[in-house]
Amino acid sequence: MSESTTDAATTASDDDAVAAASSSPGLSRRGLLGLALGGGVAGLAVGVGAGVAGGVALGRARAAEEAQTAYDFFGAHQAGITTPVQEHLHFASFDMMPRTDRDDLISLLQDWSYAASRITQGLEVSATGAVGGDAEEPPDDTGEAQGLPAAGLTITIGFGPSLFENEDGDRYGIADRRPQALERLPPFVGDDLDPAHSQGDLCIQACADDPQVAVHAIRNLSRIAFGRARLRWSQLGFGKTSRTTSAQATPRNLFGFKDGTANILADDAKALEQNVWVAVSDEPGWMAGGSYLVARKIAMLIETWDRVRLSEQDAIIGREKGSGAPLSGGDEFTEPKFSGTAIDANSHVRLAHPDQNDGIRILRRGFNYVDGNNELGRLAAGLFFLSYQRDPQQFIALQKRLSTDLMSEYIRHVGSGIWAVPPGAASGSYVGAGLFA
Amino acid sequence: MSESTTDAATTASDDDAVAAASSSPGLSRRGLLGLALGGGVAGLAVGVGAGVAGGVALGRARAAEEAQTAYDFFGAHQAGITTPVQEHLHFASFDMMPRTDRDDLISLLQDWSYAASRITQGLEVSATGAVGGDAEEPPDDTGEAQGLPAAGLTITIGFGPSLFENEDGDRYGIADRRPQALERLPPFVGDDLDPAHSQGDLCIQACADDPQVAVHAIRNLSRIAFGRARLRWSQLGFGKTSRTTSAQATPRNLFGFKDGTANILADDAKALEQNVWVAVSDEPGWMAGGSYLVARKIAMLIETWDRVRLSEQDAIIGREKGSGAPLSGGDEFTEPKFSGTAIDANSHVRLAHPDQNDGIRILRRGFNYVDGNNELGRLAAGLFFLSYQRDPQQFIALQKRLSTDLMSEYIRHVGSGIWAVPPGAASGSYVGAGLFA
Repeated sequence: MSESTTDAATTASDDDAVAAASSSPGLSRRGLLGLALGGGVAGLAVGVGAGVAGGVALGRARAAEEAQTAYDFFGAHQAGITTPVQEHLHFASFDMMPRTDRDDLISLLQDWSYAASRITQGLEVSATGAVGGDAEEPPDDTGEAQGLPAAGLTITIGFGPSLFENEDGDRYGIADRRPQALERLPPFVGDDLDPAHSQGDLCIQACADDPQVAVHAIRNLSRIAFGRARLRWSQLGFGKTSRTTSAQATPRNLFGFKDGTANILADDAKALEQNVWVAVSDEPGWMAGGSYLVARKIAMLIETWDRVRLSEQDAIIGREKGSGAPLSGGDEFTEPKFSGTAIDANSHVRLAHPDQNDGIRILRRGFNYVDGNNELGRLAAGLFFLSYQRDPQQFIALQKRLSTDLMSEYIRHVGSGIWAVPPGAASGSYVGAGLFA
Repeated sequence: MSESTTDAATTASDDDAVAAASSSPGLSRRGLLGLALGGGVAGLAVGVGAGVAGGVALGRARAAEEAQTAYDFFGAHQAGITTPVQEHLHFASFDMMPRTDRDDLISLLQDWSYAASRITQGLEVSATGAVGGDAEEPPDDTGEAQGLPAAGLTITIGFGPSLFENEDGDRYGIADRRPQALERLPPFVGDDLDPAHSQGDLCIQACADDPQVAVHAIRNLSRIAFGRARLRWSQLGFGKTSRTTSAQATPRNLFGFKDGTANILADDAKALEQNVWVAVSDEPGWMAGGSYLVARKIAMLIETWDRVRLSEQDAIIGREKGSGAPLSGGDEFTEPKFSGTAIDANSHVRLAHPDQNDGIRILRRGFNYVDGNNELGRLAAGLFFLSYQRDPQQFIALQKRLSTDLMSEYIRHVGSGIWAVPPGAASGSYVGAGLFA
């Protein structure tokens, strides 16, 4: 929040960025010109490489000064999957606007990638940003993140089944490139889905250690989408309910239990290869290095759960509430034993365990949410479940297995979506470039 | 999040707490016995002094270890007013349940005070907490904050006008003790209030640097209220939009502008005395050392604002978006000059300035909020305005003055409430004790 330091750094960095940009053209400025941005356009359109060159330098300077974290937007995989789970989430689902064409979609992905490459480095969405442009035009950047560091922001972009083909047909000439695996999820026991909080042509997962940085990201990416895509639904989350590195302590969900003890960790290359990343040998080729994202908004019947006796809570989960140890003994990280009677056959830990599911594992990345309360005075709260897997069938198999989960009595799945998450963009390119190649 | 360290500390502290409690009885356990808490009751009812003795020791130990902050719940003033503004808010408004009596209200305030005295020190709501009680009973504490530090949590409790008298009359025998100043706010230009998001017999402002800690507080205090009061509405907020110490950088609201530059600061004893704290000479006597809280949920028309050119945004606010300096010159902390033409007569900074309002000042403590988006794809976002003042007339005068505010075009007041915030409780007592003396 050191205003003067940051402003100085941004200026220096933006100069670097503009210099770097001259040798790395990349992005269409078509969509941006559709916005009444005037003086800001030059900044927004300097090319996708710009944010990187300037951003990394800035990231390093700040890391030394403020111990802040900045993750590269470009790379083999998109950031925000194996990245150490941040503290805050703003997730957004978008639908493409009527009468948009293939070029609109490509330019949107290019513009999103360019802006994401900047804001993940703590920069504004363009070189002119919130206050550096023509004062007689609306600023490029909405400005509420001025002075804030990158805060570990990651932007992860996904493509829903409806993007490839919907009731309007093959709008973008990509129907034949749809991954066979990318289909709307089947109905599950316990589904009580709100269509207004499900699905979407596109999604953006913004995670950061500062909620204002995550909100700034979704707000500005929504704004950049103006005329091409619009927000369908969105969700804020906090207090990550999983971990992706062994250095992270296991957090607790709103049932008060540790969550994510047995999650796939970022340093487990073999598990990631087997369970998370789409392989080169998988179809389609443009998804290699990508993953499939499932989002489920899971409402928890908080007040009902809170009236359940401790021994029953433990039995439902199959773990001790305090330590997280399986009821078969040991500590949090002891493998549960299912042969005895200590762990109920329909406990959550047993039904979700790889041993009971042909070895299937998924990488979970959920967050707690509270959307105020309902008219009965009950908290509208729960778990915004996010998981990444190499094939959606992994999630489907696990979720079917959970149909007899003792926990089902205390939860309702109220939102759902699935998206193909392409591999990371190469520097100077954009997320999804392979789809249009 | 260091599980083992925290558990050890909690255990030690709880022992201290129980020891201390034997010499400081205080709280009714009536309401608690109404809950099916069984084994937890002993813990919940050990007395109000308990949390303090144990809590402060624990707070100190953790401060050294984790650089975490714990604020005393007890004191001359309630915490959460001049306390350095934390990063997160969970605000809750409650209505008393039908057929509750004076003893119910007193026991509720006692139980809230006891629990608050513990959780503000990073403890669970009772000595047995989430997992230390009888396993055949529901736990006292819902458990999601196990392992988390106090995170600067403050709990601030207020009494609405309807608590003193409503359509059911003088339910609690306190109508004649209602502060004359405590009346529902008059209608203002720009009001578009949702009754379901306004008013309330009681309110609790929970602020913390970790949203999970603030949410845990409201959830557990709501639970403790079971059968006596129920949640009427609640609001999460983030990214404080004011500051209360000169060490805090001025944060930005969702219009992208610095907010709170000229706020009353915690070290300005004279300004606090004149503008924030109810004086001993003010009526009624039981409010001396207290304050009046006004909450306004102010929706921002984000997408409309984002299309306004920078020069006009600056003119509307009367300050430069980047630096926060008044348009009459200088830097952020230069006093604005209204004699020239640089600052519009209807700019926000001018209309809200003490010079234009007979010297009136208020202590602001608002937060940004995002409640997802509406069906048009627009962010449901804005400012959850909270202000503390010695007399509600201060807010009323300022808000009337803002009727011609240029900013009005871009905001809607959608929620409103006012509460008398009693002085802090003495150690071993409870918030509001003076009202019933």
